[in-house]
Amino acid sequence: MAIDHTHVASRRSWVASANDHGTDFPLQNLPLGVFSKAPDGPRCGVAIGDKILDLRTAAERGLLRQPAAEAVLGENLDALFALGRSPVTELRHDVFAILDSETGTPDDSLLHEMSDCAMHLPTSIRGFTDFFVGIHHAIRCGEIINGPHYQLPLNYHYIPTAYNARASTVLVSGTELRRPLGMRKRLDQDPLPTFGPSVWFDFELEMGFFVGPGNRTGEPISISDAADHVIGFCLLNDWSARDIQMFEMAPLGAFNGKSSGTTISPWVITVDAMEPFRLPAMERMPGTASVPSYLIDSADQREGGIDVALSATIWTEKMRAAGEPPAPLLKTGSRYMYWTPAQMLAQHSITGCRLAPGDLIGTGTISGPTRADLASFFELSTVGKEPITLPNGETREFIDDGDEIALFGRCERGGFVSIGFGPCMGRVTPALESVG
Amino acid sequence: MAIDHTHVASRRSWVASANDHGTDFPLQNLPLGVFSKAPDGPRCGVAIGDKILDLRTAAERGLLRQPAAEAVLGENLDALFALGRSPVTELRHDVFAILDSETGTPDDSLLHEMSDCAMHLPTSIRGFTDFFVGIHHAIRCGEIINGPHYQLPLNYHYIPTAYNARASTVLVSGTELRRPLGMRKRLDQDPLPTFGPSVWFDFELEMGFFVGPGNRTGEPISISDAADHVIGFCLLNDWSARDIQMFEMAPLGAFNGKSSGTTISPWVITVDAMEPFRLPAMERMPGTASVPSYLIDSADQREGGIDVALSATIWTEKMRAAGEPPAPLLKTGSRYMYWTPAQMLAQHSITGCRLAPGDLIGTGTISGPTRADLASFFELSTVGKEPITLPNGETREFIDDGDEIALFGRCERGGFVSIGFGPCMGRVTPALESVG
Repeated sequence: MAIDHTHVASRRSWVASANDHGTDFPLQNLPLGVFSKAPDGPRCGVAIGDKILDLRTAAERGLLRQPAAEAVLGENLDALFALGRSPVTELRHDVFAILDSETGTPDDSLLHEMSDCAMHLPTSIRGFTDFFVGIHHAIRCGEIINGPHYQLPLNYHYIPTAYNARASTVLVSGTELRRPLGMRKRLDQDPLPTFGPSVWFDFELEMGFFVGPGNRTGEPISISDAADHVIGFCLLNDWSARDIQMFEMAPLGAFNGKSSGTTISPWVITVDAMEPFRLPAMERMPGTASVPSYLIDSADQREGGIDVALSATIWTEKMRAAGEPPAPLLKTGSRYMYWTPAQMLAQHSITGCRLAPGDLIGTGTISGPTRADLASFFELSTVGKEPITLPNGETREFIDDGDEIALFGRCERGGFVSIGFGPCMGRVTPALESVG
Repeated sequence: MAIDHTHVASRRSWVASANDHGTDFPLQNLPLGVFSKAPDGPRCGVAIGDKILDLRTAAERGLLRQPAAEAVLGENLDALFALGRSPVTELRHDVFAILDSETGTPDDSLLHEMSDCAMHLPTSIRGFTDFFVGIHHAIRCGEIINGPHYQLPLNYHYIPTAYNARASTVLVSGTELRRPLGMRKRLDQDPLPTFGPSVWFDFELEMGFFVGPGNRTGEPISISDAADHVIGFCLLNDWSARDIQMFEMAPLGAFNGKSSGTTISPWVITVDAMEPFRLPAMERMPGTASVPSYLIDSADQREGGIDVALSATIWTEKMRAAGEPPAPLLKTGSRYMYWTPAQMLAQHSITGCRLAPGDLIGTGTISGPTRADLASFFELSTVGKEPITLPNGETREFIDDGDEIALFGRCERGGFVSIGFGPCMGRVTPALESVG
């Protein structure tokens, strides 16, 4: 693919913090989000260093081309994403020109301090679907529940499988989350279910992506068109009450166990920003079925994957009290996704199911093949049987009250400026003592 | 419970067709819906006989009390349902007074001919959840798939189980539905999956209900409050591609198999209209677990159930060509719901999951205990092994192209005027021949 000027490593911004080594938001990133600064309501912006470019102000001053200029005036990014990829790319070029030290004129009146702003969900997220494409996660969870001879279900190698998740409780990074109540059963450890706070409360490190423009009911998106419906990426923590989930799972799948909340990072890293960090689709496991032709496209096979280094930290109450920093939990990568985002959209819509602008798609937990790559406590502690020890001596089987889990994502490749996702954070507060 | 004047059997409307024997929409029903008459856009209305009372016009003429008068000015019922049950009851009393032959003044300028209007979805349906409370369906499907010694999963008697369904493809009655494509595997009949149009395409007779006002994330709705969040009921056909569903089901549950569309009847039969037709909660099966206390409320146990006679018909191309009427398929009833609507909402929100005004909740397929009560082809034809014969000699294992399935619901009780739901209809059109 041809890499355009927005990826040239020598270009710098007149926003000084965007040129800092290690910033998530250099001039080459320019992610989209929704912020507010009191007393104003939510509006659309672009992260640059430790600042936010105000897209409404930029549009009102005539610095952005149509149709994006009109679309960014709303309270979220739905209207922009509905336009499709080309207008988003044009917007990127316009914002690049504004912020580039060679072509732009320094003008602080276009900017807000990120630290003065609250972040909001990027879109209305009318639909939220969670896939299961982390193959090492699928294998390890199956082995934990069913024993070492577990085989992936027949469907796993034919299609990317998924479930509908709960859109109403998607939370933006930084929102506290209450430990849920429910009927719990810790696999064979509990002979019968009991009611109370989840004791196997867990995180899941996933990536998410946003849909636009989507399709009409009854009209599938073909695999060759599907990439045009992926606007950008975020990090996603699919909080999971494993004891509630294990009790409810058969035969309908996860419901209450996943409904207390799902946290996403607020900035949408566009597919344009991700262009230097694409990968081929993951290779098939040996001896498995051939992928059906409606899920195969040569460009998607060549560069439909993404290469994001992913990691998670935990920050306990004890660490905070002692003035200690968060402790690393794991490192993994988006290269362990067995299906590409385009394949997920083609599969999602093959029945004619409608996808709408701003819909959120989760990848499922992206564990890697080794012990250090496991992207949930369920896997890290082998469902509580092998507690992990943190640097300060604390141990964890699952999440304790007060623990803050943060997810991180970075893209690095020689010759290109590294970009980051910004953190996806959430702290767990104690369960309610009673209902009603 | 005290029955109010809107249920008195002797009251008649000045809208003549509302007094016809057998009408679904007498003065005692007054269901809420969203209609449009060209060239105007969608607005809120009430069904009365073969007419629609225009709630916008009624509000503008000062015939309705606040806050409902303001809430019905929108393009759907979200704002009204957000107000909660009392304003909906006040609206019912105001509309009754307008349409009652004793208290109202005949005024055709408030009315539209139903046959001149198009119906729309009643709310924005941001969330759609499908439960599994038809216990005879759960047992029979389990036996068909797993054999005659099948036992319901442990969770079934403790909690109403559910899955998140796809809100974006909920369709209003009368919308055609395209037979979906997908990876299909007909249980053991197919050794491996193949791609193509679903050949086991099925209907499911369910009821639905609408939520209002709902809760905030992290704050469960208690069982004693839950009934106040049920605004009214509809009929629901959860079209299901069984061959696609059987292949994808383990372990995540149904996804593509249920995503081509879900059809609902357009009129919301309010809980006030249903008041004479309440039932006690269904009795527990002998020897089963006690229901957890967070799902038990004495009023809900006494009258949390509903008594709706349910039926379905099929109208094939051959029948239409021969000028024959639709043929009956089955009769069942909402009394076979093992959990009440209030229990479903209490369970749905126990984790803190947010429910929003206008969310749609499906009950799951409501089969009865006998062969004549089976509410899907999967059960009626024993997954295709025992085709059913229609009155004109045609046979069906599942739905053929051109078949129109219609669901009906009626409430009858001595001393009260019967009310109906209006039909929930959908015709299946041939699958696409290719994608993209």
